[in-house]
Amino acid sequence: MSETKILLSEKEMPTHWYNIQADMPNLPKPALHPGTKQPVGPEDLKPIFPMELIKQEVSTERWIEIPEEVQEIYKIWRPSPLIRARWLEKALDTPAKIYYKYEGVSPAGSHKLNTAVAQAYYNKAEGIKRLATETGAGQWGVALSQAANFFGLECTVYMVKVSYQQKPYRRSLMQIFGANCIASPSTLTSSGRHILEKDPESLGSLGIAISEAVEDAVSREDTNYALGSVLNHVALHQSVLGLEAREQMAKVDAYPDVVIACCGGGSNFAGIAFPFAYDKIVKGAKVRLVAAEPSACPTLTRGHFGYDYGDVAGFTPLLWMYTLGKEFMPPGIHSGGLRYHGDSPLVSQLVHDGIAEARAFGQTAIFESAVLFAKSEGFVPAPESSHAIHSAVEEALAAREAGEARTILFNLSGHGMLDLPSYDDFLAGKLEDYPLPEDSLKEALAQLPKI
Amino acid sequence: MSETKILLSEKEMPTHWYNIQADMPNLPKPALHPGTKQPVGPEDLKPIFPMELIKQEVSTERWIEIPEEVQEIYKIWRPSPLIRARWLEKALDTPAKIYYKYEGVSPAGSHKLNTAVAQAYYNKAEGIKRLATETGAGQWGVALSQAANFFGLECTVYMVKVSYQQKPYRRSLMQIFGANCIASPSTLTSSGRHILEKDPESLGSLGIAISEAVEDAVSREDTNYALGSVLNHVALHQSVLGLEAREQMAKVDAYPDVVIACCGGGSNFAGIAFPFAYDKIVKGAKVRLVAAEPSACPTLTRGHFGYDYGDVAGFTPLLWMYTLGKEFMPPGIHSGGLRYHGDSPLVSQLVHDGIAEARAFGQTAIFESAVLFAKSEGFVPAPESSHAIHSAVEEALAAREAGEARTILFNLSGHGMLDLPSYDDFLAGKLEDYPLPEDSLKEALAQLPKI
Repeated sequence: MSETKILLSEKEMPTHWYNIQADMPNLPKPALHPGTKQPVGPEDLKPIFPMELIKQEVSTERWIEIPEEVQEIYKIWRPSPLIRARWLEKALDTPAKIYYKYEGVSPAGSHKLNTAVAQAYYNKAEGIKRLATETGAGQWGVALSQAANFFGLECTVYMVKVSYQQKPYRRSLMQIFGANCIASPSTLTSSGRHILEKDPESLGSLGIAISEAVEDAVSREDTNYALGSVLNHVALHQSVLGLEAREQMAKVDAYPDVVIACCGGGSNFAGIAFPFAYDKIVKGAKVRLVAAEPSACPTLTRGHFGYDYGDVAGFTPLLWMYTLGKEFMPPGIHSGGLRYHGDSPLVSQLVHDGIAEARAFGQTAIFESAVLFAKSEGFVPAPESSHAIHSAVEEALAAREAGEARTILFNLSGHGMLDLPSYDDFLAGKLEDYPLPEDSLKEALAQLPKI
Repeated sequence: MSETKILLSEKEMPTHWYNIQADMPNLPKPALHPGTKQPVGPEDLKPIFPMELIKQEVSTERWIEIPEEVQEIYKIWRPSPLIRARWLEKALDTPAKIYYKYEGVSPAGSHKLNTAVAQAYYNKAEGIKRLATETGAGQWGVALSQAANFFGLECTVYMVKVSYQQKPYRRSLMQIFGANCIASPSTLTSSGRHILEKDPESLGSLGIAISEAVEDAVSREDTNYALGSVLNHVALHQSVLGLEAREQMAKVDAYPDVVIACCGGGSNFAGIAFPFAYDKIVKGAKVRLVAAEPSACPTLTRGHFGYDYGDVAGFTPLLWMYTLGKEFMPPGIHSGGLRYHGDSPLVSQLVHDGIAEARAFGQTAIFESAVLFAKSEGFVPAPESSHAIHSAVEEALAAREAGEARTILFNLSGHGMLDLPSYDDFLAGKLEDYPLPEDSLKEALAQLPKI
């Protein structure tokens, strides 16, 4: 039998990140200042980001070097394995070859650590002592806590209150890494207090937590803000995983017909898909790029393409993206990491331009595929990542239907060891397939900023 | 900087397990039938084990081939990485080089899957339809559930009731893999009912759960029993990890001065240490082999060397080993996987003969080292594995004291993603360093079978 795992040595690890802004036929429109509605400049972002990340945000250089200090930490788990899903192929009785890139091997348990380490490094290099961020389900909070600890930075994480209560294990992890994890909305910020005045029982949202973290960073000289998805520099850092995957597939003379990742803020999709988007745009490769999102929060498939705020309070710049409107309140699906009203401007633009495509799935379907995957391949996936699995299963069944030995690549962005209660719900038949709250969507879209 | 991770390709994976029974200066005395007190023969074991495992139990062949079907499943995660603990070395300011073998990458999260897959394979090959086993903290139950599922076998796991209640995440995992997880003592077996009659509130113990699983297997034609540690065939299967580690160290021209693993039933220690014990016994290598155990259950450091039962009810053969007495009730430390009164006869004999040595540590100390490790190396270890980390830290500090660049190898047998509440207790200062219950030990030793 040929290889199951395709590994790269540390010497083969990419030394540069790939920046798709060098190659896109259309760049997203520039981010706008929330006050003036004029394009933001470096000075506007300086209170919350280090200059090196601000430069990366707008750079059109194709390759950006990965600092040696970041590479050294990457080597704890990178290059991550690419695995041929032989047993899943067998279970589906498909002629398709299915490969998955497995980012669950990172000590933080997901791909989020790729950008967290880079962001902590640049902040440290520019003299910052402390980072503030928000987290939904907790994967990003864990990753930034760990990265901050590697570089001796303090870290404060505003965690959406409902997750803070429901996911104590992720909170424990942040505490092990020495971070200060706070339930949001909190009384520590004026935006948190404002929400609590209106609704003392508020369970929070990602948009609220972002407002609190940004306010924290703006109000302290020694503190910057860090974001785990959406922004261009985050997509840039995640490209390391797609670059590795492309190299790994080349080792076995394989090239994907379709590349799939789940998509919330977009960094995971960007990471695996952008190096292949380069092949598609620059070299004319015939590869489909599929972003899989929850049908309960269908930003790419049902959202409006235009300007919107990244947070609920309206502190952040306006981004040019697909959005459901910052007031949209998605149902409480188990994939907390995908419950975001907006999306990466880069991913949004590629979908708008037909270079990438999007699919939306309900949570019963994605858990069915998650359990099928766990039983056939062994690894229990995070609910978020299971959107990619489900999409890959659909593609494999279509290949069977067509009788074609198509090659499918997906990113398994994280393990589900801290999401097991949601599997209990699924196995007990208690999982609901929430319909999209059409009224909330309509209302949220009506309130989009008019620009 | 030189390599951080030392990887092997699948082609370099061992094709044979190493059987230390070929090379030990003294073999343990034979196992005795619990009724006749005569050495057990294959016929005695046939009701609960497949013949191939019974043969392995007493084989003195040095190399035993790993079946191709088992190798194919191993390839999902094996060869596992060997990692140079650069950041831990730095944190300890030691001239020592510290390497760890990381078994937490297995889909079951620990080294237990190495033998689970082999055991499920041999049972399937001999026509068995169903496996019964016990589990304490749950790592073994998870591994066997997963392995049984790979080979299409049913699986019933008797889980010590206190863990069943306290560790619902591990129970969820077993259910994902389709196993039937039952709180022990249960009303399904006569030994369970017997315990419940005496004490309806019994929280169970590993010894009781073993009795239930063995009774289950004996009472059904289609069912065999599987044990996750202690026995010779289990130690044999785990040798794959030590063989890999030795090959990985050779790749960077390194050889350990000391090899360390935690030790409960002994399979984890056997796995990493036996291939080096071969070097020591056969080739005269100067390598120390250290088994790290909890001071609350100090089998190797405080136990009696002689015959004892493996379970509480006295169903199992009498094994020649270090034991605290089957009636010994260790305090409720967080390292549930190390709370066993006995130990592997092979490991016991090697310790008795001075080829291996043992150290005992309190749980506050091991959690301190666990957090130090997590903060410096990134991976959050299982409490059991943290005994090995703590012992490695001690060795590294001794090397600093001596000003010697010693080489330390330890096995990080599993991750701690499902043990986070114990970290919460530690960080909150709530962890107790239980003293050894001397009265219980004295009483248990007095009740040892007189043979």
